[in-house]
Amino acid sequence: MSVVYEKVALIGLGLIASSMYWAMKRDGLAGEVTGYARSAETRDTAREIGLCDRVCDTAVEAVQDADLVVLCVPVGVMGDVAAEIAPHLKPGATVSDVGSVKGAVIEAVAPHLPDGVHFVPSHPMAGTEHSGPRSGFAELYDGKYCLIVPVPGSDRDAVDRLKALWNGMGAFTDELEAEHHDRVCAVTSHAPHLIAYTMVGVADDLRRVTDSEVIKYSAAGFRDFTRIAASDPTMWRDVFLSNKDATLEILGRFTEELFALQRAIRQGDGDHLHDYFTRTRAIRRGIIEAGQDTDAPDFGRSGSKS
Amino acid sequence: MSVVYEKVALIGLGLIASSMYWAMKRDGLAGEVTGYARSAETRDTAREIGLCDRVCDTAVEAVQDADLVVLCVPVGVMGDVAAEIAPHLKPGATVSDVGSVKGAVIEAVAPHLPDGVHFVPSHPMAGTEHSGPRSGFAELYDGKYCLIVPVPGSDRDAVDRLKALWNGMGAFTDELEAEHHDRVCAVTSHAPHLIAYTMVGVADDLRRVTDSEVIKYSAAGFRDFTRIAASDPTMWRDVFLSNKDATLEILGRFTEELFALQRAIRQGDGDHLHDYFTRTRAIRRGIIEAGQDTDAPDFGRSGSKS
Repeated sequence: MSVVYEKVALIGLGLIASSMYWAMKRDGLAGEVTGYARSAETRDTAREIGLCDRVCDTAVEAVQDADLVVLCVPVGVMGDVAAEIAPHLKPGATVSDVGSVKGAVIEAVAPHLPDGVHFVPSHPMAGTEHSGPRSGFAELYDGKYCLIVPVPGSDRDAVDRLKALWNGMGAFTDELEAEHHDRVCAVTSHAPHLIAYTMVGVADDLRRVTDSEVIKYSAAGFRDFTRIAASDPTMWRDVFLSNKDATLEILGRFTEELFALQRAIRQGDGDHLHDYFTRTRAIRRGIIEAGQDTDAPDFGRSGSKS
Repeated sequence: MSVVYEKVALIGLGLIASSMYWAMKRDGLAGEVTGYARSAETRDTAREIGLCDRVCDTAVEAVQDADLVVLCVPVGVMGDVAAEIAPHLKPGATVSDVGSVKGAVIEAVAPHLPDGVHFVPSHPMAGTEHSGPRSGFAELYDGKYCLIVPVPGSDRDAVDRLKALWNGMGAFTDELEAEHHDRVCAVTSHAPHLIAYTMVGVADDLRRVTDSEVIKYSAAGFRDFTRIAASDPTMWRDVFLSNKDATLEILGRFTEELFALQRAIRQGDGDHLHDYFTRTRAIRRGIIEAGQDTDAPDFGRSGSKS
């Protein structure tokens, strides 16, 4: 691979940024990568583990001369960070972000950016339940999708160059329009997370009654919800607040369907249940065929014959 | 390990039974293991892959002289199978089952069993999203819990011997009372499955609108729901119909909590969301500390640094 950007600045050093760093280094995609995190503890950790070529004590210092600045902070503070760095951006630089919501981020960030700076929002559809500077790894984006969400007037060359970076880090890229992005993510990511959080919350209430049984016997399904529900609280608070309408719409549909299934259970309508469960099985096959998950029997977690 | 039962009969040859067979063989826990499945195709597959020492064409033949008979069929047909085999059981034999619901199974099976045959229901809390005779593997039960649910008057020696078998196959065992079992499983397994099925159903409806985006971008959370929702439709139909009350109660609590979170989103109550998401994170740590899942960042699925 060849260098895509001479100088990259990562603002925020959590799972997404640290995985970007390791992936850019693995693939030789960037010259120097600077990093900044608001917390001194995170900056110390980054220095200790060699995360970023240079860790800066201010965002302004980190973005100095950068060809690409990537905002890797919770969606709720993107606007503040953009306002702070805007006067210090190099003319011709590209600013991107990795927020899970695009409409609200564009609204918050775009007004701050000076003319001659290109804004190309993005959203890598990958993650783990871990967070913080130690959680990143170079392979996170391999074979996953990174959605590129150009804003009206986004420079074509700037868009293509950012896509080249993500492709270099192992990801597929697709271009989506912001509102459509936010609706798709409400289905594939935001609503599932809220539902998982809810189920774990219910079990947590009951745990006080049933002691540790909920935990001991979690391998029969519940366990998978707890993994999703262990994701970063600040990030997810901001996601729900900034993609409110699309998330609430999907949750409304979800509740409707859930009520229909509850009624089928109450009425003993086995055919309805069986048909429904057969249909949902097919979508799983689609995901495996698309290479977005493996067919390994992961509920068992440990070694298997297949 | 030494032999726990001279002759074991497995009725039904899906994921649970086939994993039991491989585990019993790995650990030398049984003399001869016979197997029976209603479908000729399943019996042929079992013979082809060497699943069971002897595959029989009838359940009656399989249970002949068996010291332990394990019913590994969907909960809804346990009663019929018990009625069929009952006159052919060896005096002193133990009958067990692996159903995910215990109250309804005990009600359906117990009346058919003759005096002098011991009934000791069980429920291994382990599984994968795969089903059928090819899906089993010896390690499925390693480190998982198998719940033993003695019925009133269950013979102590028969209970202890069945526990020894499950311990030999790598599982921990706990004894629970049937009604309590069904309530705990409604939380840890039944409600999570219905919720996952529902979320996947919603996405499947939307997929017709958004083409394959739901599948392509599934790695951001939705993917984990599809794995649960790919479980066997017949098995799960029967579980919901036979653990109706406990499942509906948990779903009622779930809906209450979901509505509270939806209201917090609508009203922009970030503190409520953040507190909730912080609390659910703790339960995940409990599961990892209890050894019921690994801390590996599984969302990434592929190699990681940790």
